[in-house]
Amino acid sequence: MKLIRYTENNRQKTGVIINNAMFSTEQFGEDYTENFFETNGLQRLDAFIESNKESLMPLPDDITLACPVARPSKIVCIGLNYADHAKETGAATPSEPIIFLKSTTAVCGPNDNIVIPRNSVKTDWEVELAVIIGTKASYVTEETAMDYVAGYCLHNDVSERAFQLERNGTWDKGKGCDTFAPLGPFMATKDEIADVDNLRLWLTVNGKKMQDGTTANLIFKIPHLVSYVSQFMTLLPGDIISTGTPAGVGLGFNPPVYLKPGDIVELGIDGLGTSKQQVVAYQ
Amino acid sequence: MKLIRYTENNRQKTGVIINNAMFSTEQFGEDYTENFFETNGLQRLDAFIESNKESLMPLPDDITLACPVARPSKIVCIGLNYADHAKETGAATPSEPIIFLKSTTAVCGPNDNIVIPRNSVKTDWEVELAVIIGTKASYVTEETAMDYVAGYCLHNDVSERAFQLERNGTWDKGKGCDTFAPLGPFMATKDEIADVDNLRLWLTVNGKKMQDGTTANLIFKIPHLVSYVSQFMTLLPGDIISTGTPAGVGLGFNPPVYLKPGDIVELGIDGLGTSKQQVVAYQ
Repeated sequence: MKLIRYTENNRQKTGVIINNAMFSTEQFGEDYTENFFETNGLQRLDAFIESNKESLMPLPDDITLACPVARPSKIVCIGLNYADHAKETGAATPSEPIIFLKSTTAVCGPNDNIVIPRNSVKTDWEVELAVIIGTKASYVTEETAMDYVAGYCLHNDVSERAFQLERNGTWDKGKGCDTFAPLGPFMATKDEIADVDNLRLWLTVNGKKMQDGTTANLIFKIPHLVSYVSQFMTLLPGDIISTGTPAGVGLGFNPPVYLKPGDIVELGIDGLGTSKQQVVAYQ
Repeated sequence: MKLIRYTENNRQKTGVIINNAMFSTEQFGEDYTENFFETNGLQRLDAFIESNKESLMPLPDDITLACPVARPSKIVCIGLNYADHAKETGAATPSEPIIFLKSTTAVCGPNDNIVIPRNSVKTDWEVELAVIIGTKASYVTEETAMDYVAGYCLHNDVSERAFQLERNGTWDKGKGCDTFAPLGPFMATKDEIADVDNLRLWLTVNGKKMQDGTTANLIFKIPHLVSYVSQFMTLLPGDIISTGTPAGVGLGFNPPVYLKPGDIVELGIDGLGTSKQQVVAYQ
């Protein structure tokens, strides 16, 4: 299944994509929340769609997509998880995963504007594969880790490099600004992706290719990441792990290149769709 | 007002403390959530108590207290915000606030057990004053910052020093383990605390005084912290900012002293009550 959420009359509503067409699942009566995933929501939604497929309401193409899952309890991000990206930032290849947290107030829809924060001069892009947790996970092994995964989605891990690296302390200051987590267009359930370790992911700014990588180059693979993070904190259903970005971020250019109002960022991952954000100044 | 939450039959319920006695506010019909604070819940609760004070159900002394607010969207912690603590850890006094995020799955009740994570050898304590946000705050000034504060509570910012400092990357890995955020016993609304800049805070381990400080020594005061954090991320009603710990943590001893199963940690802040946690091994 491919799950979507969209905004209508200031409310977030749910839907699915079937054969490239979008349908409302509002009659299913549940948002895609922690409770949804925790109570076998994916199976229940699948059964609902099966029983109602003749009567599902089609959605127009111009709906405003929202993040495909409701606000998670946390977004755990993995730093420097592609060797080429670690190299471009001048960092060593990590010996074990680097984790940081992204404030969930950063979540926005896949095609919403990226708002450059006040006093920002180094707002940067990062195309990433995000993993959505389906089942509460604490101290899980690498061997069973995939049982705890519900699916995947596209994520732009927008980052303010001065806030992240030059303003004291941890990276979190430059990772959690509002609109810094465009997620979607959809969440693909695990079964939709034949080989998650072999997906091309790319990002352009104003049509120019900046990032072009493959998940084959992930230093730490998804089962390792899920197991690893679960040694430090319980992952709840609906929580997100963002797996890191390949080379080609603005920080890696010489001189660095950062986003400015009017820029258009487009990104995509094989099988997980594409998203497009316009960059705007904070008003 | 002093707000409490407690656990009964695996459900979290709400109450208040009036003249040192605890009463249920279950009939008020709302948990102390983001929505509660966002919709003038404190004023509505006050009116409810006023109208029903003769019929409020008293609660027995042996209830199991929970975190006094429902799970927040985020817990923002301030690092090294007392000069004596910065010194004992060997760090410089910060030129601007250090912020990191604590996973909200770490939240537990004020007297719940602290569970030492698997493979931990350096689990440490930190008594802190936590601020609870009452109103959505984005880019607020220091002058108006207190208008966005709902109240305060006691927090033990439990920390695993090896996870935090020796395991790659940001501090978040050692701050968000399950049970690492005992909060409470109660949330005091702002008006209950005459001078938040002059509160004694202390912590003992097995009856031995380890921390004994005063909020007078906060490097960055609460209005500055609320304003500062709001420059990097929107603070939602119910969100928590934990303001840092004074000297006397285990890491600061020579040699360092860490928690072990069976230890009893007690802590308190003037006007914000006391809490007591037993340390246990992960089972």
